[in-house]
Amino acid sequence: MPDTLDTLLTPCLVLDRAVLQRNIDRMTARLKPAGVQLRPHLKTAKSVDVGRMATAAFDGRITVSTLAEARYFATGGFTDILYGVGIVPSKLPSIAALRRQGGVNLRVVTDNLPVARAIADAARDGDTFSVLIEIDSGAGRAGLPYPDLSGLVDIGRALHEAADVELAGVMTHGGHSYHESTPDGIARVAEQERLAVVTAARMLREAGIPCPIVSAGSTPTAMHSRNFDGVTEMRPGVFVFNDLDQAGIGSCDAGDMALSVMASVIGHYPHRNQLLIDAGALALSKDISAQEFMPRAGYGFIKDAPVPDLAVVACSQEHGFVQADAPLPWDKLPIGSKVRVWPNHACITAAAYDRYHVVDSEESDGRTIVATYDRINGW
Amino acid sequence: MPDTLDTLLTPCLVLDRAVLQRNIDRMTARLKPAGVQLRPHLKTAKSVDVGRMATAAFDGRITVSTLAEARYFATGGFTDILYGVGIVPSKLPSIAALRRQGGVNLRVVTDNLPVARAIADAARDGDTFSVLIEIDSGAGRAGLPYPDLSGLVDIGRALHEAADVELAGVMTHGGHSYHESTPDGIARVAEQERLAVVTAARMLREAGIPCPIVSAGSTPTAMHSRNFDGVTEMRPGVFVFNDLDQAGIGSCDAGDMALSVMASVIGHYPHRNQLLIDAGALALSKDISAQEFMPRAGYGFIKDAPVPDLAVVACSQEHGFVQADAPLPWDKLPIGSKVRVWPNHACITAAAYDRYHVVDSEESDGRTIVATYDRINGW
Repeated sequence: MPDTLDTLLTPCLVLDRAVLQRNIDRMTARLKPAGVQLRPHLKTAKSVDVGRMATAAFDGRITVSTLAEARYFATGGFTDILYGVGIVPSKLPSIAALRRQGGVNLRVVTDNLPVARAIADAARDGDTFSVLIEIDSGAGRAGLPYPDLSGLVDIGRALHEAADVELAGVMTHGGHSYHESTPDGIARVAEQERLAVVTAARMLREAGIPCPIVSAGSTPTAMHSRNFDGVTEMRPGVFVFNDLDQAGIGSCDAGDMALSVMASVIGHYPHRNQLLIDAGALALSKDISAQEFMPRAGYGFIKDAPVPDLAVVACSQEHGFVQADAPLPWDKLPIGSKVRVWPNHACITAAAYDRYHVVDSEESDGRTIVATYDRINGW
Repeated sequence: MPDTLDTLLTPCLVLDRAVLQRNIDRMTARLKPAGVQLRPHLKTAKSVDVGRMATAAFDGRITVSTLAEARYFATGGFTDILYGVGIVPSKLPSIAALRRQGGVNLRVVTDNLPVARAIADAARDGDTFSVLIEIDSGAGRAGLPYPDLSGLVDIGRALHEAADVELAGVMTHGGHSYHESTPDGIARVAEQERLAVVTAARMLREAGIPCPIVSAGSTPTAMHSRNFDGVTEMRPGVFVFNDLDQAGIGSCDAGDMALSVMASVIGHYPHRNQLLIDAGALALSKDISAQEFMPRAGYGFIKDAPVPDLAVVACSQEHGFVQADAPLPWDKLPIGSKVRVWPNHACITAAAYDRYHVVDSEESDGRTIVATYDRINGW
């Protein structure tokens, strides 16, 4: 007999493949007609299976956030991999070693001249590198701040003129889209993303420096952008799973959440109208980003709950405190029964697990385990 | 040549063995003269090496928080293991399987009659169980709430009278000690812990039910308790490493923190007086518990920082935003240089890593890697 949700021990990660596929189809339908490649940020799923599904309609390029992911996806057959976190010289030997292994074009990112020069120096030892220059389109994280962009051409020239280094392009991440909650607000951020990288690409080209890749993207901007002119690829990540945070800002509907944490009810505490589950800070993460636009989300809402707004309101390491305004219907949530929790932020929650238990709410009953996908964690 | 901190890739976890040993010695000196056994909660370290050090002066009993830890420590030679999270019936077969393997006394915890009866039923199939009844001494998490304790004797009797079930005792965790910041405040919680379990043990004994183990403990209460009368064991966990949260409430001094996350500076942003490191939400965790008494702690202070209160003030998945009030001394923190971050909450931060890179600030230079300890994560 196949495993079902009933036979799994808790806490564990449940992935609905039907919802996952719908989310990928929706993103494909946004980008494909616009002639924009999807370079999914696989820091969310960290899964070769999900990576293959997400790139099926595109040319197979992907984004990763760690060297461990780069190695794992290279082994899984991906050959155009962008390591999207600013590179440091100490990691260049690992990058070079991976690039030497059978045609893997593992590209790196920088936003400063010292690292550009270190890449040029490292390339002199016979290894090649491919580099994108990072632009800050308004998120205030990494990148040369747009519209200033001073220093861009110097970095571009240092890379372009170095032997065995390809300046592959420019990239940005409009992470400030996560703090907008209307389609118009997100579309404004998307246009900032676009203008920042398109302008940077034009500055490089006007200086005689080729800039083939013009890369932008976050899930909200990829979903709500109204103009991709000049952008060659988008790098959304969390769209494959979605979560309460994305639902809160309107990147997806509640029915588009593919990932949940399954937990068991371990105790009833009627004197404080609370129950405990065996999913706490490690199983759910302490990410509370969804609370910005969904203040009652706590550490996650309970799926298909018998009372409104039943949420994990506090966490210790392995205990989740579940509460609602209404009196808890104890008979519907007996000790030992299982609940599923929608996470605040799928990328952070999933990182505690080494696998997905995959169900399918369309092709199957949504409770039978139809597959297990592994994940790569750590660095 | 041995590895040093300079040759490690970031982010990674650095453990100072000298500080770890001092922390263990300090706890041993608190408990040993009082005739109290230490049953360290190894949910913090999740490491056999640390477990052996912590139990060296005691009889080897330990506490764990997951079945994965139970299996790992049983394989590592530990034979008296308390699984400290309320058990559910679906996990009893796994418990029984582990108990069948060569003399491992894996004990479980409950606070309710349905589970006590399920344990009694499961034991009828030929497997034995050892159970502690959980008491809520004021933390408001799991346990029968003290001083009410109604239902205690019924649960005790259901377990005591079941064939092949040992009612091993009572246990509590004064987790509310984490929200006190003075020795007197913590000592008051410690006395609540003690009274709750000692009273529960007396109630059981008066009903003719043996109660050999009387178990309490958190790191703050173990450090500040003024009276262990009637308590047979304490279960502190984070004391082995300590962290900003423990320093904030006065369970340790800043020099007692054994664990740090090493990261690399990946970018300079003078226009906003910030730098970025390659340790973000996954490498540090999103736990901000230290901010309760240390509001400037952010997601962690930088060790040996060149300006006061240099802290990780924000995190995305793999980026940490580092800032201080003073202008950042860029030349002292060049791109590519390494920093070490004191975590808010060592238990949660460490869970992202599969190993400790061990240095020793007394027997060695504090930078050479003298050992690597593995960890068990997941469930």
